[in-house]
Amino acid sequence: MKTPEKLRVDIERIKSDILTLAAIGKNEQDRGIYRMAFSDKDMEGKRWLTKRISENGLEASSDGAANVSGVLKGEADYPRIYVGSHIDTVPCAGMLDGTLGVVVGLECLRVLCAEKIQPKKSLELIAFSDEEGRFGGTFGSEAFTGTLTMEKVESAKDLNGVRLWDAMAAHGMDPLKALDATRRPDEINSYLELHIEQGPVLDENRLQVGIVESITGLQSWSLRFTGEANHAGTTPMDYRKDAFMGLADFAHELPRILEENGGDHSRATIGKAEILPGAPNSVPGMVEFSLDFRDPSPEILNELSLAFQKALAAISRRRGLKFEFHIQGEIHPVASDSRLTELLQDQAETLGLNFTRMLSGAAHDAQLVGRIAPMAMIFVPSKGGMSHSPAEWTAWEDIEAGANLMLSTLYQLAMKPLGS
Amino acid sequence: MKTPEKLRVDIERIKSDILTLAAIGKNEQDRGIYRMAFSDKDMEGKRWLTKRISENGLEASSDGAANVSGVLKGEADYPRIYVGSHIDTVPCAGMLDGTLGVVVGLECLRVLCAEKIQPKKSLELIAFSDEEGRFGGTFGSEAFTGTLTMEKVESAKDLNGVRLWDAMAAHGMDPLKALDATRRPDEINSYLELHIEQGPVLDENRLQVGIVESITGLQSWSLRFTGEANHAGTTPMDYRKDAFMGLADFAHELPRILEENGGDHSRATIGKAEILPGAPNSVPGMVEFSLDFRDPSPEILNELSLAFQKALAAISRRRGLKFEFHIQGEIHPVASDSRLTELLQDQAETLGLNFTRMLSGAAHDAQLVGRIAPMAMIFVPSKGGMSHSPAEWTAWEDIEAGANLMLSTLYQLAMKPLGS
Repeated sequence: MKTPEKLRVDIERIKSDILTLAAIGKNEQDRGIYRMAFSDKDMEGKRWLTKRISENGLEASSDGAANVSGVLKGEADYPRIYVGSHIDTVPCAGMLDGTLGVVVGLECLRVLCAEKIQPKKSLELIAFSDEEGRFGGTFGSEAFTGTLTMEKVESAKDLNGVRLWDAMAAHGMDPLKALDATRRPDEINSYLELHIEQGPVLDENRLQVGIVESITGLQSWSLRFTGEANHAGTTPMDYRKDAFMGLADFAHELPRILEENGGDHSRATIGKAEILPGAPNSVPGMVEFSLDFRDPSPEILNELSLAFQKALAAISRRRGLKFEFHIQGEIHPVASDSRLTELLQDQAETLGLNFTRMLSGAAHDAQLVGRIAPMAMIFVPSKGGMSHSPAEWTAWEDIEAGANLMLSTLYQLAMKPLGS
Repeated sequence: MKTPEKLRVDIERIKSDILTLAAIGKNEQDRGIYRMAFSDKDMEGKRWLTKRISENGLEASSDGAANVSGVLKGEADYPRIYVGSHIDTVPCAGMLDGTLGVVVGLECLRVLCAEKIQPKKSLELIAFSDEEGRFGGTFGSEAFTGTLTMEKVESAKDLNGVRLWDAMAAHGMDPLKALDATRRPDEINSYLELHIEQGPVLDENRLQVGIVESITGLQSWSLRFTGEANHAGTTPMDYRKDAFMGLADFAHELPRILEENGGDHSRATIGKAEILPGAPNSVPGMVEFSLDFRDPSPEILNELSLAFQKALAAISRRRGLKFEFHIQGEIHPVASDSRLTELLQDQAETLGLNFTRMLSGAAHDAQLVGRIAPMAMIFVPSKGGMSHSPAEWTAWEDIEAGANLMLSTLYQLAMKPLGS
């Protein structure tokens, strides 16, 4: 048995697992990967993962939500230390995203297993189902944390109108059993997830890992300005009620609103807009658009929301427009557990890693788990900030650094006495 | 025979003609009218017009471009005084637009004819073909002014891919004969056109008629900003190359650019925009949009063009974007003939009309004719500034006022000796 300081992951095994999973659902044409949740390819990936868990001496199982687990038993069965992510993908995906966190978790547990370390607490690798939201949300981690509802199980449909119920039944699953996948908070000592950053910060600053202090909250709005469609030639500028100019005014206010009411981590994005009637020689009578804004603080989110509404009202008054908005989606921010982030920082320093503390601007399974148990995340760099694309990439050395940080942190957690 | 000061149009006859034409091509469902150029309904309207011209003692004819004429012979055959507009419509049209100018011209000539007035100059009513541009432009007035090309006759297609050639041949016409419809400048003493304003100025200021001093020029651009599509959550604000924010900046500069470089009649409109990828949680990587800008002065159009390009370049530098633009269409401004506008003003004062001198922000057949001969236009109010819609409307009293102004002006022109 190696001394704890000498414990290291085997990057060749991680690489091999990543490449094996990358072949499942690979599209030869565009070189992207697609393992849509509850598709044949997703289930093939889960069967491969289950086999790989068993081969390495861990106890494989799966729950009613088709979350796949691998357990390394400790002296006590519960509360457990969880490590995981997901293996389903968006269309035309890269090979990392959630897959990396699952493979790294597997590698950590098999190193501990191979070294015949007997942990005080049990460790459980978990690959959550449908993180990418084929059926509208983080299905597996909702089931895990008890936020999945009967209504969703019965009524959720994907964008093609396929029911969750039928998609699960097609693979021999009883959809109602998803409601039994819930873990109680007292069964969870902590949850750790390694993920690619999906943003440019680590890559541009040449850092190896990020320790995530919080996962941002977000509100997603759909909005509409209504004015008056008119002839672009015959309508003098001061007679116009140009809905698009209202949107331009609003977009122009975003930086001011973020500066006045936001923090360093605030973001606001207008990603979508449709102009009606949409002819080059018509003054726009209506514009429908989206607003996505994020911040790790619920108070700041609230202040931003108020400031946006004030700006919308002022612009509408000034331009003779009407505005409407509707909150399409809302995700609450979740802070990492400070004892976990301190432990991560301590281990990163011991390993001599180039790291920073940072924020997650994207949503993750950890956001769900973090609501009921202590959670923290490790980020590794995304080349050029790219994700959800075949161009998604992280240097193997950085993956190795992040995986070793995960391994030593899991070891420290697992070897601490129960109740700590 | 009435004294010239007593000559008046018969509004009931105008009304009857307008309502008769409104029934040709009427859609019972949406109550709009559609007489697409060279469609059966358009040809039915032309046949009706030809018959109506003959019934009233005028000489009816049509030229190779299917422009329909009605001539009231004067002492000399040429140069003639032309009065006209068009009877083809956009889809879902109202009953006025070009039709009103043709019907008013017809009424003026039949009043002169019925009163047995023998003018010194001949008067010709003309209804130009395809003003609305089924085949891309003002076909009939291009043929009339000699700007129609063999290439256009042979290659023009409508939006459904139907060839102009086939559309004309289907009605037994020889398309090449359109090239023979040209009138020489020395055959035209003057051209007058009455049209609805299609804008709000006369209506909002409760004026009966507008004397058009110039028809605005326009440039129509298609533009593109290219930035970088990124994740809306993970990409900090200062790492973004947000193409939509470039467009918002540009829209925000429009009022300043008009104020600095434009005149009272300058207009600029962004009527169309498409954002890519167009997802609420993606920072826009590309935006394609239109810019339509107009002014009656070629110098101002040129200055506006330069100012827009400067703004596009500055915004691109500031935001790390690339910009491209392409001139999709360009119409040169045309000034009305000052002797004609003076005569119109003189007659409007004599008739005691509430009038203003103004600009046409829309293009008209008069814009083509005005390039080769003296031209002027009379506007009547558009209720609420509406046009190209079943809601298009002008009070009959205002139509009557405009028609009487046309009648007395035509009389004055026709009775002046040749060479004046």
